[in-house]
Amino acid sequence: MYYCSQCGSKQLIKKVPEGDTRSRIVCEKCHSIHYQNPKIVTGCLPIWEDKVLLCKRAIEPRSGFWTLPAGYMEKDESVKEGAIRETWEEAGANVKQLQLYLIVSSSQKSVSMIFLGQLCDLKFAPGIESLDVQLFTKEEIPWEEISFRFVREALTYYFEDRVKNQFPVRVD
Amino acid sequence: MYYCSQCGSKQLIKKVPEGDTRSRIVCEKCHSIHYQNPKIVTGCLPIWEDKVLLCKRAIEPRSGFWTLPAGYMEKDESVKEGAIRETWEEAGANVKQLQLYLIVSSSQKSVSMIFLGQLCDLKFAPGIESLDVQLFTKEEIPWEEISFRFVREALTYYFEDRVKNQFPVRVD
Repeated sequence: MYYCSQCGSKQLIKKVPEGDTRSRIVCEKCHSIHYQNPKIVTGCLPIWEDKVLLCKRAIEPRSGFWTLPAGYMEKDESVKEGAIRETWEEAGANVKQLQLYLIVSSSQKSVSMIFLGQLCDLKFAPGIESLDVQLFTKEEIPWEEISFRFVREALTYYFEDRVKNQFPVRVD
Repeated sequence: MYYCSQCGSKQLIKKVPEGDTRSRIVCEKCHSIHYQNPKIVTGCLPIWEDKVLLCKRAIEPRSGFWTLPAGYMEKDESVKEGAIRETWEEAGANVKQLQLYLIVSSSQKSVSMIFLGQLCDLKFAPGIESLDVQLFTKEEIPWEEISFRFVREALTYYFEDRVKNQFPVRVD
């Protein structure tokens, strides 16, 4: 952010506004406060029998690494609808019976909310942000080529929980 | 948003960028795309024995109506830490044993994430955004003076679930 989106001034400074406790980007000309809050990344761990569906990223960051279908939530959808949409867009797959599984606030920029979802059928294909889409058993997961921490966490928890057939929601 | 925060131009239009499916605010001068995504409101339903703690809002919107301590998540905290912070800031109360309870995507601007939390003690007091803070039994809840839909939903679900002593996570 280089210019105030309210008045167009370049007089942006970082300071703690009166009555606040945190440093914000403030416009010295029009006094607008530009809050920066984490965005929501919503996604899905698609399941088929003893396998899970992963996408190989076609875009940076972490291009070429395996991920879960996930992306920024849009304004015109619920978190769950966003997870279904991302699974369709990135993996060409339809999922059903979504249940919230994991919330990770590890990044300052976003909170990842991951659902478990059952694949409706065996139709899947890479979207424009994916190089490949594949089903993996636990033993086949390419652990050395996983894109992000939340993906690793979701997969690790899932294969642990599957032994007990209990899938509690985990929130950090 | 009246000016591009990247180049200061006023040439902002709404259009569907190439490769996208949704209308965005795009700068015609520098071609920046200004995505607008929902923010996270994190909050708590503080519990003491058969009572819940509500805050009377001192600020608009819905000034004078009763709410749960809740507010925008900050970048330097987890969702759960944000709920604890908001409970302290708005109700002067300490909560523990937080468990995720409700996620509501009802507004285009935000997703509300509400935790159940146990009050650590009977110390509470209105913060600067509250006119009053009070404990209410189910019968005492001022249903006609509730601020927002997510507050009404959280309270309704909670008193229903308490009968069964089971508090499943609800996600819309």
